[in-house]
Amino acid sequence: MNTADPVAAIILLSGGLDSAVTAACARGEGRELIALSFEYGQRHRAELRAAARVAKHLGVRRHVVLPLDLRAIGCSALTAEIDVPKDTPEADGGIPVTYVPARNLVFLSLAAGLAEVESAGELWIGVNAVDYSGYPDCRPGFVRSFEETVNLATKAGVEAAAAGRVGLRVRTPLLELSKAGIVQLGTELGVDLGLTHSCYDPPDAHGTHCGRCDACVLRRRGFVRAGLPDPTSYAGGA
Amino acid sequence: MNTADPVAAIILLSGGLDSAVTAACARGEGRELIALSFEYGQRHRAELRAAARVAKHLGVRRHVVLPLDLRAIGCSALTAEIDVPKDTPEADGGIPVTYVPARNLVFLSLAAGLAEVESAGELWIGVNAVDYSGYPDCRPGFVRSFEETVNLATKAGVEAAAAGRVGLRVRTPLLELSKAGIVQLGTELGVDLGLTHSCYDPPDAHGTHCGRCDACVLRRRGFVRAGLPDPTSYAGGA
Repeated sequence: MNTADPVAAIILLSGGLDSAVTAACARGEGRELIALSFEYGQRHRAELRAAARVAKHLGVRRHVVLPLDLRAIGCSALTAEIDVPKDTPEADGGIPVTYVPARNLVFLSLAAGLAEVESAGELWIGVNAVDYSGYPDCRPGFVRSFEETVNLATKAGVEAAAAGRVGLRVRTPLLELSKAGIVQLGTELGVDLGLTHSCYDPPDAHGTHCGRCDACVLRRRGFVRAGLPDPTSYAGGA
Repeated sequence: MNTADPVAAIILLSGGLDSAVTAACARGEGRELIALSFEYGQRHRAELRAAARVAKHLGVRRHVVLPLDLRAIGCSALTAEIDVPKDTPEADGGIPVTYVPARNLVFLSLAAGLAEVESAGELWIGVNAVDYSGYPDCRPGFVRSFEETVNLATKAGVEAAAAGRVGLRVRTPLLELSKAGIVQLGTELGVDLGLTHSCYDPPDAHGTHCGRCDACVLRRRGFVRAGLPDPTSYAGGA
């Protein structure tokens, strides 16, 4: 394994709007991207197809799709047979049923493993604490705590500490942005946001969005508030 | 999802000596065990068979075997085609080639997801900072840091903090024990240590140990130093 290369970076790429804009931020800082996506028992494959489109669009060095079937342990609407809630964004301020247990913790941990193999010095993740649907693992406190833990867990972190260097860094450029701000930033960075996929419950296999689940409502409102044209195809043309 | 049950506990069960003794400690404290094992691209299945034997022996409530093919990201002797080093335990005090990138971080993160689903309040892991082969993710600092992170990452942790309760706890009863102390403890707790499997490079599929890899050397010395009969079958009867 080589010395960590500060230019190489792992990007967690879901195929959604946030991760695509995050990847563009990393590229904008001169990073060479290694994208990591998970096939984790989604009810649909639309987001993995979007991840592949975005990876190609942004010219990543490598795109790893790791099978990880969380149905064996999971109980979420995104991985099990629970109805996705509609028309109820931010209904009660609580943690929604679409929460996947410990998802970002698991994803960042696997990204750390890939970073060691690829000698990458950074993990980029599109978490967002503003329009974030109430998931606990999208908050700044979690991200900072994970960064400490990962440097205690890994060979890269131990070797960096011994050499007086900074180990793995977790980069979250969207953390304090609204969805409108994210749409604006992605547009400025030249991302084709029409390639991305957000819908939790797509009505077909052609990239159409339902327009009513939490993710669609947040996405749509982001374009409206940014005052930018929305390239998304919503069901019924609504 | 129900309120966390302090009696239910996740045990990371590799099928090795340490995790079997750890599970027995949890049972000794009255915990109801949910065992989690990983099928992560091992070169052999002997340790999963041992995990199943130990799970049955200890009467676990549920044994989850999660497929997780780290070959997609890994570069270790345990998951890739690198020769397992022989007759060189603690040769240079460094991190050995058998290191799997971020393994305990990944395993504990998935255990945290399972804990949420099972409403379990504890994660038990057989890490050991004495006879530990130099893996960074076996040290006390990592374990404490992970415990902080997991409570920031999960619904269980957030809800516990809001209610003024302790969230998920990480339990490591072997942390300060020598391998001899672990053998002694397991024997006192009535564990049939002959059911466990430690060898990194088994010569056959019948539970025989090579006797020469790091894991075998540590295991064998543990029994010798504890002054207890070693039920292990070593290659050549050595």
